[in-house]
Amino acid sequence: MAIHAVIMAGGRGERLWPFSKPDMPKQLHAFGTGKSLIRSTFERLDGLAEASSVYVVTGADIAGRIREHLPELPAENILIEPVGKNTAPCIAYAALHILRKDPEAVMAVFPADHLVGDPGRFREAISFGVEVLAARPELLITLGMVPDHPETGYGYIAPGEVLDEEAGLRVHRVLAFREKPDEARARDYIGSGYLWNAGMFLWRVDAILEAFRKHLPVMYGQVMDMASEGPITPARVNEFYYTVDPISIDYGIMEKASNVSVIPAEFGWNDIGSWDALGKVLPRDDAGNTCQGSVVTEDARGNVAWSTGKKIVLIGVEDLVVVEGDDAILVVPRRRSQDVGKLARKLK
Amino acid sequence: MAIHAVIMAGGRGERLWPFSKPDMPKQLHAFGTGKSLIRSTFERLDGLAEASSVYVVTGADIAGRIREHLPELPAENILIEPVGKNTAPCIAYAALHILRKDPEAVMAVFPADHLVGDPGRFREAISFGVEVLAARPELLITLGMVPDHPETGYGYIAPGEVLDEEAGLRVHRVLAFREKPDEARARDYIGSGYLWNAGMFLWRVDAILEAFRKHLPVMYGQVMDMASEGPITPARVNEFYYTVDPISIDYGIMEKASNVSVIPAEFGWNDIGSWDALGKVLPRDDAGNTCQGSVVTEDARGNVAWSTGKKIVLIGVEDLVVVEGDDAILVVPRRRSQDVGKLARKLK
Repeated sequence: MAIHAVIMAGGRGERLWPFSKPDMPKQLHAFGTGKSLIRSTFERLDGLAEASSVYVVTGADIAGRIREHLPELPAENILIEPVGKNTAPCIAYAALHILRKDPEAVMAVFPADHLVGDPGRFREAISFGVEVLAARPELLITLGMVPDHPETGYGYIAPGEVLDEEAGLRVHRVLAFREKPDEARARDYIGSGYLWNAGMFLWRVDAILEAFRKHLPVMYGQVMDMASEGPITPARVNEFYYTVDPISIDYGIMEKASNVSVIPAEFGWNDIGSWDALGKVLPRDDAGNTCQGSVVTEDARGNVAWSTGKKIVLIGVEDLVVVEGDDAILVVPRRRSQDVGKLARKLK
Repeated sequence: MAIHAVIMAGGRGERLWPFSKPDMPKQLHAFGTGKSLIRSTFERLDGLAEASSVYVVTGADIAGRIREHLPELPAENILIEPVGKNTAPCIAYAALHILRKDPEAVMAVFPADHLVGDPGRFREAISFGVEVLAARPELLITLGMVPDHPETGYGYIAPGEVLDEEAGLRVHRVLAFREKPDEARARDYIGSGYLWNAGMFLWRVDAILEAFRKHLPVMYGQVMDMASEGPITPARVNEFYYTVDPISIDYGIMEKASNVSVIPAEFGWNDIGSWDALGKVLPRDDAGNTCQGSVVTEDARGNVAWSTGKKIVLIGVEDLVVVEGDDAILVVPRRRSQDVGKLARKLK
């Protein structure tokens, strides 16, 4: 059964600033992987979704560049957000489009800018989820990543009873979602079998819209209004986005709904949510330095150095991030690279 | 009594790389002081030496730019070194020129790229030295800087008996020169009243040439050959420089001669021999950061940040040097900034 896939590509490039920027955010970069992240996200859906059933939600400023990366995508499948309002409005807007094509469609949601090391296992997990939904169409499924370290930068999911199982894959009822923990708590979570919340979802379009109606009734009314009198016009989209509250799907629905479930998955996932995270997934030299472009190291260990033109020379430094962007040069300890996004926003 | 002053401007800009470079070395930069270091060195001689008695020894590649900084200087007073061979050949070459004008001239030697905070006291020290030489024309005088911290980056001078004294200034016989010490030894040196060797000298031209004859007889023969048959032609200069041994004046003469003396001086001297040293002389912000150009700091302390175009953003880092040059970006802990010159040479 083919699915409708929504790629959320509204990222503003703040966390990997100054290399990624609002007009050239993370999803448009390859980060040494050979293909842009959004292209890889699209190709990963091969065999799961037809190009005509893939939707990209993004801002007007980068929509043209996204089309260049995804020439197979029908133009009308690029859904423009006039302003970013977090994930719940984005998902509601995409769900409305899918609903009008097929009210019983299975809808999957993926961020545009994550890495997946093993696309085969990714597709197995999604296919399993589709089977689960055939038997239990009311479920809201999230993919939970099996942690390999006590990461403090992610939210966690506590899995409960197993609802279904097949060929090594299981789907659990979700007991609770947990905010980003400190390191001690992260260790506890891992010991308790908690999973990372990766922001990847699978559900029937009628089920998620029913969840909006129940848990975010105002937003539900606003999104349904968009299509109440014929076509979804740009004016109606503008009205929706400029009036809707910015709420995340986790906070607005997943943490409240009782029919939420999780499929534990291991497919080499990384959200590249910081320069530190990027340094962990790319190749390192013998001294643990992750270098891109022209970089010279002398007695330097464990650094992430990203040159886009000038030669970066590191002498005797450890565990630093050093990034040259077009207009700025960033220097920050790896352990503080989570603070980059905040400062990038402040500098704008 | 007017002196003949030699400004040694052969520096290759290695220690403050990548901002200073072979084609734009330290002496041509202002480092936030408003005037290039060589211009300040020249103006500091006001009242001591006529422009016609000031000589600049430098390489052909930057001679043109030096003339732009010192338009008052007669063209023939720029003495080109075809290749750098350390300070002894440079001083011998300049001494030969001065000898031909006046065999009894007082000759002073100054590096082109040092900072002097109090030019008035600098001139007082030199004038005192000139008086000393009137009575004791055989002396080789060096200026010894009174240390204010146990610096490990300088050589030290042990002063002995006082030879002469006037208006708070004294000249001592030198007991010994000491190589750059470790920190414990530097503390001992300061406790013993030792002085920093600043590479500034004052002597009669006949006295220094006599010292060359005695302690560096081969070099003496080579330099006198340059003028043995009429004018000093470029071919003879080339022959001298390509055959002479690279020896420092300290090692070749000052440490060996018995007629060496020192005038202790306090005139806000700094050789800006490293980014760390530069950070100590320029203004700092409340968090101890020395910033030049476009720099943003967030929870960053004690850094030296030098931007020449791009915005340097420092988050949560301490005691680092971050420098943007035209082609390179340097990141090094301040305590290791002495290693920059070595690496800059290696990168060439």
